[in-house]
Amino acid sequence: MKIDGRHYRSIWVEGDNVVVIDQTALPKAFITRTLSSVDSVIDAIKTMAVRGAPLIGVAGAYGLALAMRDDRSDANLAAAYSALKESRPTAVNLQWALDRMRALLAPQPENRRLDAAWHEAAKIADEDVELNRAIGEHGANLIRATHQRTLRPVQLLTHCNAGWLATVDHGTALSAIYQAHDAGIPLHVWVDETRPRNQGLLTAWELGAHGVPHTVIVDSAAGYVMQRGQVDLVIVGADRVTANGDAANKIGTYQKALAARDNDVPFYVAAASPTIDWSLRNGHAIPIEQRAADEVRQIGGTTLIDASTAVANPAFDVTPARLINGLITERGVIKPDALDALRRGQIAAAFTSLAT
Amino acid sequence: MKIDGRHYRSIWVEGDNVVVIDQTALPKAFITRTLSSVDSVIDAIKTMAVRGAPLIGVAGAYGLALAMRDDRSDANLAAAYSALKESRPTAVNLQWALDRMRALLAPQPENRRLDAAWHEAAKIADEDVELNRAIGEHGANLIRATHQRTLRPVQLLTHCNAGWLATVDHGTALSAIYQAHDAGIPLHVWVDETRPRNQGLLTAWELGAHGVPHTVIVDSAAGYVMQRGQVDLVIVGADRVTANGDAANKIGTYQKALAARDNDVPFYVAAASPTIDWSLRNGHAIPIEQRAADEVRQIGGTTLIDASTAVANPAFDVTPARLINGLITERGVIKPDALDALRRGQIAAAFTSLAT
Repeated sequence: MKIDGRHYRSIWVEGDNVVVIDQTALPKAFITRTLSSVDSVIDAIKTMAVRGAPLIGVAGAYGLALAMRDDRSDANLAAAYSALKESRPTAVNLQWALDRMRALLAPQPENRRLDAAWHEAAKIADEDVELNRAIGEHGANLIRATHQRTLRPVQLLTHCNAGWLATVDHGTALSAIYQAHDAGIPLHVWVDETRPRNQGLLTAWELGAHGVPHTVIVDSAAGYVMQRGQVDLVIVGADRVTANGDAANKIGTYQKALAARDNDVPFYVAAASPTIDWSLRNGHAIPIEQRAADEVRQIGGTTLIDASTAVANPAFDVTPARLINGLITERGVIKPDALDALRRGQIAAAFTSLAT
Repeated sequence: MKIDGRHYRSIWVEGDNVVVIDQTALPKAFITRTLSSVDSVIDAIKTMAVRGAPLIGVAGAYGLALAMRDDRSDANLAAAYSALKESRPTAVNLQWALDRMRALLAPQPENRRLDAAWHEAAKIADEDVELNRAIGEHGANLIRATHQRTLRPVQLLTHCNAGWLATVDHGTALSAIYQAHDAGIPLHVWVDETRPRNQGLLTAWELGAHGVPHTVIVDSAAGYVMQRGQVDLVIVGADRVTANGDAANKIGTYQKALAARDNDVPFYVAAASPTIDWSLRNGHAIPIEQRAADEVRQIGGTTLIDASTAVANPAFDVTPARLINGLITERGVIKPDALDALRRGQIAAAFTSLAT
């Protein structure tokens, strides 16, 4: 993604450190942050300076590389793996990347671990870029098909930020929107504010930088715009998709899916294979992160709710597969109930299902 | 309602002025505001210093009394009526109260209009208190029935503020909760934040002052707590209920109703008869107020979204009757489709319908 004419990824290596864009400073300020230890990676993930399921997977991989730089022992590998894994519980990409890194590093002699770690983390990052590019291609086809049917600018709605900031580049849901926009398909995006952390403002910032028309609404207004016939497609990202097609994503996604279904608006989840957790049969088993009450109490730097009032702050919810029209994966768009065919390698069967 | 031991209504008369509680200052500060002209009433309504469908009805009535104090002519009556009516379009109570005042005042000689206006406005205010007390009695019965069934503390969820601040006293949805709490029924209330104006914080303030256990959540989290089985009943207020039982209420109410239905949680709308607009067959015809973008741009006094980003700010949505289990009225709880029987005076038929 280009910012003021310069190409950026959301994470990169400088010397033997890792650099990220501080997403807590956006959209007000564009600030990079150098991560020089596994602890600084963990802190960046916990505070959401680095956020988005695909990106925290890559950040976790680089975190293990930083750990190996400092101490290549089995004990440190195990300790760094555990500490990183616990930094955020809901997105499965983090665990997926850490497992991949550990499986590669653990059998190797200590003197080979550092090079291997940097190499593998970079590979995971590069793969993420390609996965998201492919997601965008398939998603853009959906948007194009909608435009060909309606002959009007396509009205999209998204929740949270599933843009390039949430990945290494391109984004997931927004990758589709960028590619459709770049292909000349007229479109407009309704951007949910996404309280309490307001990641919708990251989405608006990204869309603005890319020249994509968009309008910010409060989370509560999504149902209204759908009722008014002002949404053709909803596309969101995901933090974890289970084997049956249930999808955990930012709190409030479930309410969007309900409103989409009630108004016959197709609801799509854009997620690459590292986001799919084959080990869980359904979304009931996904751990839902409960974040600090201060995220709700403090709005825009002002404390509106004092400590005498109880606050709950679940960060994710699970949208059941029955409300999801399709998953936009790097291999194509499939219905949630075709995931199992995909897992068993029955590719043709999986992708045929969407036509039914 | 008592604040620090002193009983308050949300609006009252001092000398020949009207005094209200400035709801834009709450919950941080309890400040009263003296309204000494029809223009000051209009300003208080538009800026939401005075808000809540029942209360703005009463404020409108007092606005006409202030207008008569200054100029009792037909021309001024007509001008004040029009200006007040246009101050907020969605809640029907304002129009209802203004129509009632005008119907009383217009036929009278000018020298009788001032006394008549003060008297009638006070009567509307007193009636509102009684309507809300009766709503609370019927609503408390629902809460009691839930407790008797579950034998657990009743978990309620509400959106926006349908408390005493939104009425002259007691509230609508919260009237039921206060009466149930006062009757010793154990309960807990999930309070939606209600962006962009955060009226949920008014609700939390009211509940806290009354000693009712409650927890604030972001609007997006309501579906999550329902999915988790943590809500037994949803009770909200309404700004306008149409003849078929559709209900306009604060933006986001529709998404709560969808989540309630998807999780088999009964969804109730508490509204007294002045909130029912018999002239509209269904909710499609309800005018939805579009408020200033700055309400969304500025969060807690901080500008988070600058003027280069488009913002839409619809203030209400319409929950279709099919998603409403019952209307809690001053006469009892009825199904939305029994409204018509009520209108035609078939009281027995209307109230029998709930048992089916």
